[in-house]
Amino acid sequence: MKTNIYLHQTHHTLADFEGIFATLALVFSQNTGLHLFPESFLCGYPLADLVIQRPFIDAYQKHLSEVDQWLKVLPKSESRALCGGLSYQLDETGELQHLRNVIYELTPGVGLKPIYTKRLLPNYDIFDEKKYFTPGEGNTFYQYQGQTFGLLICEDMWVSSFHQFDPCQSMLDEIKERQIKVDAIINLSASPFDVNKRHKRLQKAQNLSKMFQTPFIYINRIGGEDEVIFDGGSFIVDNEKTLCQLQHFAAESKLFVFEPKQNHYAEANRVTPNIWESFFAPDLEKKSALPTIRKWTEEDCQHVAQGLMFGLQEYATKSGFKKFLVALSGGLDSALVLALTKLSLKGGQELEAIYMPSIHSATLSTELCEKMCRDNDIPLKHLPIKFLHSTVKNTFTQSFKESFEGLTDENVQSRLRGLLLYTRSNQTGAMVINTSNKSELAVGYSTQYGDSVGAISLLGDLYKSEVYWLAQYLNKLSPGIIPQGIIDRGPSAELRENQLDSDSLPPYERLDAILEGILSYKMSRIQLINEGFTSNEVDKVIRLYTRSEYKRAQFCPIVKIKSKSFGFGYRVPMSKAISFY
Amino acid sequence: MKTNIYLHQTHHTLADFEGIFATLALVFSQNTGLHLFPESFLCGYPLADLVIQRPFIDAYQKHLSEVDQWLKVLPKSESRALCGGLSYQLDETGELQHLRNVIYELTPGVGLKPIYTKRLLPNYDIFDEKKYFTPGEGNTFYQYQGQTFGLLICEDMWVSSFHQFDPCQSMLDEIKERQIKVDAIINLSASPFDVNKRHKRLQKAQNLSKMFQTPFIYINRIGGEDEVIFDGGSFIVDNEKTLCQLQHFAAESKLFVFEPKQNHYAEANRVTPNIWESFFAPDLEKKSALPTIRKWTEEDCQHVAQGLMFGLQEYATKSGFKKFLVALSGGLDSALVLALTKLSLKGGQELEAIYMPSIHSATLSTELCEKMCRDNDIPLKHLPIKFLHSTVKNTFTQSFKESFEGLTDENVQSRLRGLLLYTRSNQTGAMVINTSNKSELAVGYSTQYGDSVGAISLLGDLYKSEVYWLAQYLNKLSPGIIPQGIIDRGPSAELRENQLDSDSLPPYERLDAILEGILSYKMSRIQLINEGFTSNEVDKVIRLYTRSEYKRAQFCPIVKIKSKSFGFGYRVPMSKAISFY
Repeated sequence: MKTNIYLHQTHHTLADFEGIFATLALVFSQNTGLHLFPESFLCGYPLADLVIQRPFIDAYQKHLSEVDQWLKVLPKSESRALCGGLSYQLDETGELQHLRNVIYELTPGVGLKPIYTKRLLPNYDIFDEKKYFTPGEGNTFYQYQGQTFGLLICEDMWVSSFHQFDPCQSMLDEIKERQIKVDAIINLSASPFDVNKRHKRLQKAQNLSKMFQTPFIYINRIGGEDEVIFDGGSFIVDNEKTLCQLQHFAAESKLFVFEPKQNHYAEANRVTPNIWESFFAPDLEKKSALPTIRKWTEEDCQHVAQGLMFGLQEYATKSGFKKFLVALSGGLDSALVLALTKLSLKGGQELEAIYMPSIHSATLSTELCEKMCRDNDIPLKHLPIKFLHSTVKNTFTQSFKESFEGLTDENVQSRLRGLLLYTRSNQTGAMVINTSNKSELAVGYSTQYGDSVGAISLLGDLYKSEVYWLAQYLNKLSPGIIPQGIIDRGPSAELRENQLDSDSLPPYERLDAILEGILSYKMSRIQLINEGFTSNEVDKVIRLYTRSEYKRAQFCPIVKIKSKSFGFGYRVPMSKAISFY
Repeated sequence: MKTNIYLHQTHHTLADFEGIFATLALVFSQNTGLHLFPESFLCGYPLADLVIQRPFIDAYQKHLSEVDQWLKVLPKSESRALCGGLSYQLDETGELQHLRNVIYELTPGVGLKPIYTKRLLPNYDIFDEKKYFTPGEGNTFYQYQGQTFGLLICEDMWVSSFHQFDPCQSMLDEIKERQIKVDAIINLSASPFDVNKRHKRLQKAQNLSKMFQTPFIYINRIGGEDEVIFDGGSFIVDNEKTLCQLQHFAAESKLFVFEPKQNHYAEANRVTPNIWESFFAPDLEKKSALPTIRKWTEEDCQHVAQGLMFGLQEYATKSGFKKFLVALSGGLDSALVLALTKLSLKGGQELEAIYMPSIHSATLSTELCEKMCRDNDIPLKHLPIKFLHSTVKNTFTQSFKESFEGLTDENVQSRLRGLLLYTRSNQTGAMVINTSNKSELAVGYSTQYGDSVGAISLLGDLYKSEVYWLAQYLNKLSPGIIPQGIIDRGPSAELRENQLDSDSLPPYERLDAILEGILSYKMSRIQLINEGFTSNEVDKVIRLYTRSEYKRAQFCPIVKIKSKSFGFGYRVPMSKAISFY
């Protein structure tokens, strides 16, 4: 028998109860079949502490009860929906006892009921699920039109040696013991994007398909919540074969006509558990003497560009911004941010660039900024800081009988730009997009309250090498969007005469590899030196990195495109001792 | 038989392996007895992600092995130490398999070994222990000189209905079943300070003492790690009686000569489990029609003042600062910060105040700032921003053919002060102390990159009402440290003509109660209105609160003195919908 399975890759913001209701109403009014929705579809994800707060609990319980009432009076039909959602267990006074991350079955004419509870609760990096949820126990084999589906929620498929328990193995054991004929495994997910994850997901799903000897149905959501973006890309695989594939970074509903195959239970492949730490170590490779970060393919660049533009637009929409503001410097980072923003623009949105030269800014910087904005039809404002800079200097000399130079002088220029940028933002209501990259953030090469300002950071998860790759990709995609002269210049903060980043740092290729070693591989000083880096450069990078924690602590949210990023999932003491590196 | 029990309330920074070793060497060289040290004494706490990073793992394992080797060659003696520490289980390749939060027994001539593993892992608010640790199983009854001690680590004594399991109940069950004669319960803790916690700890310990019918020995550490401060205050209680009490916010070692009493096992008092959420709801009381935040006693003020000064000094020491810089405005918040900093100063430290009047600053503000600094012998620098302010305005008018006023103009003044403050900080190497209070932070009444700047915030966990109470307390303690004129003025940002906070906000007494209702009690709009607040004021506060999440996300670390504070333990989406309040 054939079964209609609908994969609904939805896009709702947190607690968008009206929108969720409308989606359900539409789905049940149209098509008969089994409708699959992502993890936490009924509430949104990730809600963090909201889930334990009375206003949210009350509103969600009301919403759930309304969906239930509505289902009860719908005409009975063959249609069913499986939706992720929260299941609260409150005591008689309304106090929270337990909260579960579950799959609800929605039945027209009957109502809704939870039928499966998530068992593996991710509690690493950005995930805090053990803070909120009680894990489930036991497998669910869901029956629909004579077919049997094993149910999983997101992390349930990602067992690691750090977990005490493997839901997939438990399901397989029960299948064998009770001789259950399972027709497919369904996983409802809300799985954040990272540049390496699509491949990992597919591989893992293929592996599980082989293990269970059935197709594996994977639904993922779309959306951006602060720093985290969800890329969708739902699919059905059978063994190595992809039977159905949905888009990335766009909502989509797709019908798949499912025909169960005659399964045979040959000995299943054992899935090797990952150590969860290994999720965080994807990006170093060693082809020559020294490790380098993995070179992005064109496809990687495409995914990252899509992800960054999507994350930017999600943040802007949710915060109510229709205008964007980027401070151009004539360097590559700000040019790439401007290009990405320009490419992401939707109808009715505006973009403005602002160029704030100081006495140290080269004429070439001015020319390149003008060229880029002229070529791309972006309004550019000039706001020289020379006079303000000297006014601050004079004020100090007057009040303190002592002027300043060196780092203090550099920071004044950077902070004046931050001030002017935000003044313009206040004046026009535009959202300021930060332009720092991950290499700079890691070594503290940014000025607090200066070039580190912004509502959101687009490049804060890209090493400088990756900034180059992405810029070259964009220029291939939209020829000339970034003037070649900007790509070809050496990086400089232009805060003093003839300043170049390479004066005080290892070349970016080496720097980025050392940083990835520290951040993702958690390598020690000795390990890095054993990899071939000089003790001088390793010590310098470790010193700069450990001393700049306080800057990262006050940095703006960064669109996350890696498994290990600065931001919410990066938790280290600010006062961490350097001595044990 | 009498037993010497030494309570060592230690003060070591994270991973201070040399200092820890020196403390152990001193202790074992001097006194014979049972030496008790806090939770995680051997490594420091909280280490966050450092505990899963290779540099830390390697350094800690080396340290542990050195302590073990050193113990082995010490002459045998009757002395023992029980110390908190980490126990790593690595696989053959050195990959982390499990990590446990344990108590080590240190035996001269023998070595060290883990004898108990923490069972309740706090995973709420600032705590992430389920992210790192595998929980223990089973009770430990430790034998020393013929006496028996039941062992606990910190959270093990704080069961709540959210936990699945109660270690104290499990211990009591085993005691009864096996008819064990237990002479005392020992809890090694690293328990953060909050203004209500001393009372709660004592009450809980008394309750457990009654339940077990034995004395309860409680060791806590001293220290400040970023936003969290640990206040010590170790004690021994028996029933309602305190047998031994150590200081707060100071390291101390104390001998207690322990004599077991003849225990009788009358039916033990059942300890009522707390819902962990109830830990976060301590500060509203209702004596009149409307709830108000709980009025601080003189003792509360003393504890908070001690805590803030301690937290400031800890941060400064660990970050290497010897100079402090406070921007005085003539208002109460900055005056209180200056007073606290002045009172906290140690030998060799310097403090400077800076006053940056704008065109809207009253003459009274100047006079009060001058009086305060003169009276307290604090150098005061004047740095008027009038000219810079008009220069920014002119620059804008020139470049954009359009000036600015209103909020934009207010923000420019605030950001200019931020810039000048940090320029002075760069020039002198002084640490900038933030002056915002919790009421302002909660409603977003601060300018991002303006008055919100700072290395650390002293008042970010104090509502405006509490700022008044603490100022009055300090003035009682050190008469005239804050000019009475500053306390008596109405709060104003002085960013426009005749501006007063009360123009746009409910009176602080009502505002603070509404905020505490939202933040700690997690009350909904309807609940607040039912408490007697007007829907107008509730809606206004909720709107301001939900819209200012982005400012708090980039705020500096706040010395935590409440069970619910902004900062690391406050986790909400920035784009949270207002609709469900």
